[in-house]
Amino acid sequence: MGRILCAGLGPGDPELMSVRADRAIRTARHVAYFRKRGRPGQARRIVDGMLAPEVQEYAMEYPVTTELHFGSAEYKACLAAFYDDWAARLAALAQQQDVVVLCEGDPFFFGSFMHLHTRLQGRAQVEVIPGMPGMVGCWSATQLPITWGDDVLVVLMGTLPDAELERHMRSADALVVMKTGRNLPRVRRALQAAGRLDAAWLVERGTMPGERIVPLAEVDGADCPYFAIVLVHGQGRRPEVLE
Amino acid sequence: MGRILCAGLGPGDPELMSVRADRAIRTARHVAYFRKRGRPGQARRIVDGMLAPEVQEYAMEYPVTTELHFGSAEYKACLAAFYDDWAARLAALAQQQDVVVLCEGDPFFFGSFMHLHTRLQGRAQVEVIPGMPGMVGCWSATQLPITWGDDVLVVLMGTLPDAELERHMRSADALVVMKTGRNLPRVRRALQAAGRLDAAWLVERGTMPGERIVPLAEVDGADCPYFAIVLVHGQGRRPEVLE
Repeated sequence: MGRILCAGLGPGDPELMSVRADRAIRTARHVAYFRKRGRPGQARRIVDGMLAPEVQEYAMEYPVTTELHFGSAEYKACLAAFYDDWAARLAALAQQQDVVVLCEGDPFFFGSFMHLHTRLQGRAQVEVIPGMPGMVGCWSATQLPITWGDDVLVVLMGTLPDAELERHMRSADALVVMKTGRNLPRVRRALQAAGRLDAAWLVERGTMPGERIVPLAEVDGADCPYFAIVLVHGQGRRPEVLE
Repeated sequence: MGRILCAGLGPGDPELMSVRADRAIRTARHVAYFRKRGRPGQARRIVDGMLAPEVQEYAMEYPVTTELHFGSAEYKACLAAFYDDWAARLAALAQQQDVVVLCEGDPFFFGSFMHLHTRLQGRAQVEVIPGMPGMVGCWSATQLPITWGDDVLVVLMGTLPDAELERHMRSADALVVMKTGRNLPRVRRALQAAGRLDAAWLVERGTMPGERIVPLAEVDGADCPYFAIVLVHGQGRRPEVLE
């Protein structure tokens, strides 16, 4: 009887993976990971050179979605069937041996694995190895503390409606905005409206080759980078600084 | 010419440290860490058994503060002198060789190291190895996703005024409250006022020996555990679940 081990891969630099995830991946015989059809996949790329030569790979390719609207019932049904299918396949595999599922960042923090996790309850022994969230790698790349003292940190998705974005941006001390991509122009406008644009940074491919850190105000509006996070550092209470 | 390497230790389980931090600590000749006077110190405890036998240790003991009020100018001056002193000592050491500074969680996320980091600019080569924040270990310990879909995550300090706590608790989907300790009764009242108490968990010593996970509503009001974080999981959009 095997287990399904979900290994959090961290922000992208393989050296920022946990010791436990590193070992699980190097000794794995069966490795599964999500990817878009026709792409190598970011999770798979992170573990390049770490897998044993005799490893069996399972690329869990998201259903092609160009013809279906993201919010439609058809799309939801299609995605549900995809997760159902892979949950069944992984549960069957885990009857015999351990399977390691690769997951960027931390599996329990906006990770896709949770859709399998809920479906695997009672069907297989599942273990999650936490990972460093991508945002931690991104704020570290700026070489500035994201939070001080009693700063309030808010983590937002760029997919939220404009008014929601702006409201949360106003109430936070430190800010992380994920899922920017084609929402970047809207994120930028909301930051400007909230008076935070001048303090905002865009971190693209944080901790990975091609890392880029630029003031968001200087980014071209048409630029929709991948793996990009927007950050505003907190300026909180610093008890040791004498005023 | 050496460097000052600040190694993020992660949530407490040494196996959740990054591969890079693990290596830096095992090969270190000089290791410094913060602790309260008379205590072994949590950072030092995490690396128990990892240090080389010939390592030189530097315990940076916080000045004793019982006679000074936390917010007072005297206390601030005392703390500033403490950081000034250690920044100078570490900078001098780093003239000759590498020094590894241990830091719980992630150094740039509410870490004490940042008070040295600002003081060391231009005086030594400083490198920060990111760590998994303690909160990640805590939500992983609950074995439930902290955020889904487009959930908004808010991270708060229990030291904030009651009205601030309640306001942020109302606006968040998922919640992390740090620095609970003797603020726990206030945190609990604010969660109740915000209608979130029944969904709140207390995670004490997450990923460490003695880990305890309990519904906050069941915790005795007089109980002020150490290394405890309060969590409310998000219940966000789950595109694959058919309504």
